[in-house]
Amino acid sequence: MSVINRQWVLAARPRGEPTADCFRLVESGVPELKDGEVLIRNHYLSLDPYMRGRMDDAKSYAPPQALGEVMQGSTVGEIMQSRHPVFKVGDAVHARAGWQLFGKSDGRDLRKIDPARVPMSAWLGAVGMPGVTAWYGVNRILEPKAGQTLVVDAASGAVGATVGQLARMMGCRVVGIAGGAAKCRVVIDEFGFDDCVDYKAGNLVADLGRACPSGIDALFENVGGAVFDAALARMNTFGRVAVCGLISGYNGEAIALANVRSILVNRLRIQGFIISDHADIWPQALGELADLAAAGKLRWRESIAEGIESAPQAFIGLLKGRNLGKQLVRLI
Amino acid sequence: MSVINRQWVLAARPRGEPTADCFRLVESGVPELKDGEVLIRNHYLSLDPYMRGRMDDAKSYAPPQALGEVMQGSTVGEIMQSRHPVFKVGDAVHARAGWQLFGKSDGRDLRKIDPARVPMSAWLGAVGMPGVTAWYGVNRILEPKAGQTLVVDAASGAVGATVGQLARMMGCRVVGIAGGAAKCRVVIDEFGFDDCVDYKAGNLVADLGRACPSGIDALFENVGGAVFDAALARMNTFGRVAVCGLISGYNGEAIALANVRSILVNRLRIQGFIISDHADIWPQALGELADLAAAGKLRWRESIAEGIESAPQAFIGLLKGRNLGKQLVRLI
Repeated sequence: MSVINRQWVLAARPRGEPTADCFRLVESGVPELKDGEVLIRNHYLSLDPYMRGRMDDAKSYAPPQALGEVMQGSTVGEIMQSRHPVFKVGDAVHARAGWQLFGKSDGRDLRKIDPARVPMSAWLGAVGMPGVTAWYGVNRILEPKAGQTLVVDAASGAVGATVGQLARMMGCRVVGIAGGAAKCRVVIDEFGFDDCVDYKAGNLVADLGRACPSGIDALFENVGGAVFDAALARMNTFGRVAVCGLISGYNGEAIALANVRSILVNRLRIQGFIISDHADIWPQALGELADLAAAGKLRWRESIAEGIESAPQAFIGLLKGRNLGKQLVRLI
Repeated sequence: MSVINRQWVLAARPRGEPTADCFRLVESGVPELKDGEVLIRNHYLSLDPYMRGRMDDAKSYAPPQALGEVMQGSTVGEIMQSRHPVFKVGDAVHARAGWQLFGKSDGRDLRKIDPARVPMSAWLGAVGMPGVTAWYGVNRILEPKAGQTLVVDAASGAVGATVGQLARMMGCRVVGIAGGAAKCRVVIDEFGFDDCVDYKAGNLVADLGRACPSGIDALFENVGGAVFDAALARMNTFGRVAVCGLISGYNGEAIALANVRSILVNRLRIQGFIISDHADIWPQALGELADLAAAGKLRWRESIAEGIESAPQAFIGLLKGRNLGKQLVRLI
C-alpha cells in the first residue's frame, strides 16, 4: 500500500499537566501483514482519563506507556486487509490500535461489533469500556436497592452517565455531580438523573446535602479530592463506594481526604477497581448495554474532535473537563 | 442491702481530650430487684477507645452517653442476688454494667463465663469484645492467605495482639506497629509477631518499608492518621483493609489521608466495621478464642488500674497510649 500512516508517539513524560510537546506526530508506511494478522483502518479513537496515568513512569495498574512508541488506546474501525481466519475485510471491530490512522493486529485484541445495531462510536463509550465499567461498579460493587440514593461524579462523562441511567432503572434516586450548569442540565434533562450538583458553583457541601436529603447509600467515585470528601461526609450506614477514578489527582496533586471517620462510623465498604481485571463479566455487560442502547433506553453524549492532528489537544481538554460526554477523535 | 454503690457519671462533654472534670463519682444505695432481675458485683471494668466517641453528642455508631448517667461499659463479675430463672447467685457473668461497683440486669445483656477455664479478666479482652473484633476482622474481612503480610497497628493492645496471633496461626508474616520500644518488644517476644515498627522512633515510612519487604496484603487499622497513611502507601494489589478504629482522630483532630490513590491503583477493598453489628458470629468466635486461650496458644497483656476511683485517669491514659495491653479497672 502506498497509503501513509500517521501516529502520535509519546515524546516526553509530563510534569504535572500534559502539554502539547509531550506528543509527536510521525508518519510511516502502513505495515505489511504476516499470516494471522489484519490491518485496521481506525474510524474513531477513544480518549480516556486512564491514559494520563500511563504517561508517567510510575507504578500503576498498567505498565507505563513507552517513550517514542505509539500512544496506546482503544479504537473502532474496519478491517482493510486480512490474513486472519476469523476477521474478514469489511468487518467492523473494536481494537486496541492506538493513536494512529492504521493499526495491525493478530486478532487477540479484536472484538467484532455491529454498527447497524448501535452506532460505531458508541462501542467506545456506553457500549464499550466506559459502559462496562459503569455496569460493573453498579451491579457488582454498589448493588443499590430501589429507593436508595446513588451519587456519581463526572456525571456527564461516558462512565457517569451510564452509572446514573443503570441505577435509575433499578429504582434509585440518582444524583450527579458535574462541572458547570450546562453539564448539569444535560445530566438531568437527557440522562434523566433526579438532580445534579454543579461543583463549580462554590457550594458543593450544602448543594450535595440538599440534593441528597436521605443521605447517600452508594457512591460511584471518578474524581477524588474535594468532591469525594463531600460525598463521604454524607454517606449512610453500610454505604458502598466504588472507586473507579481519581481524575483530580492524576497530575500528581495531593488528593487528601479529611472525612475518613465516615468509613468507621458508617461501616463503609470502599472498593477500588479497574475494569480490565474483570474480563469474565464483559460479555454479559456488553450484551445488556447493547440491548439497552438499541432499544433507546440508554443515552449518551459525545465530544468529537476532528482528525488525527486534534488528539493531543482533545486529550488535554478531557483532563480539564472541557468535554461533554465521551471524548472521541474522528479519523475518517 | 446496706452496701453502698459507687458510680462514675458523665459530668461534662469533653472539648478535645477528656479531662478529669468530665467525670463525677457519686454514691447511691444498691437497687432493689424486681422479678426477673439480678444484682451483679463487678470484678473488672473494661476501658475501651470506643467510649471516647460516646462522650460526644455527635452522630456515631452508638447513641451518645447521656449526661449525668452512669458511664456505660462492659464488666465481668458475679451474681450477688437473683430473681432470674437462668442466672444464679455465684454465677460468673459478662455484663454491660458500666463504671460502678454494682449493677442490675434483666439478664438480656448477660453472658455466663467460665473463670476456671480462662481467667475472669480475659473475658473482657482476648476472649471478649476485643478478641471477637480481631477474629471478625481477620476471618471475615482480611482473609489473609499463608505467606501474605498482615500489618496491624496498636499492636500491643487487646485487639491488635489478638489480630497478629490469629494471622500468625494462618501462616502470615505479621508486622505490628506500636508506640515505643517497650511495646514493640512485647509484640515480638510475647505475641510472636515477625516484626514491630515503633512509630514514635521518627522513621515510620522507612521502617515500615523495611519490615514489609513484600508489601502489605492485609491491614487491620486501629489508629488512623499518619500510621494509616504510611500503611496505605505500602499496600499490594488486591489488598484488604479492615477499619476497626481511628483512635488518633477521636478527639476531633483531622485525620486526613494523602495516599488515596493507592485505593484505585491497588484495587483495595476497605471495610469499616463495628463488632456489635455481627452478633451472629460471637458464639463461634468466642468458642474458638476460649479454646486457644485455654490451650495457652493465645496470649495477652493487661494494664490494671486499682479501684473504682482510678477509672477516669486510666481511661485518659488509654487514649494517650499509656497502657500496655487490655486496660482494666479492678474493683474487688
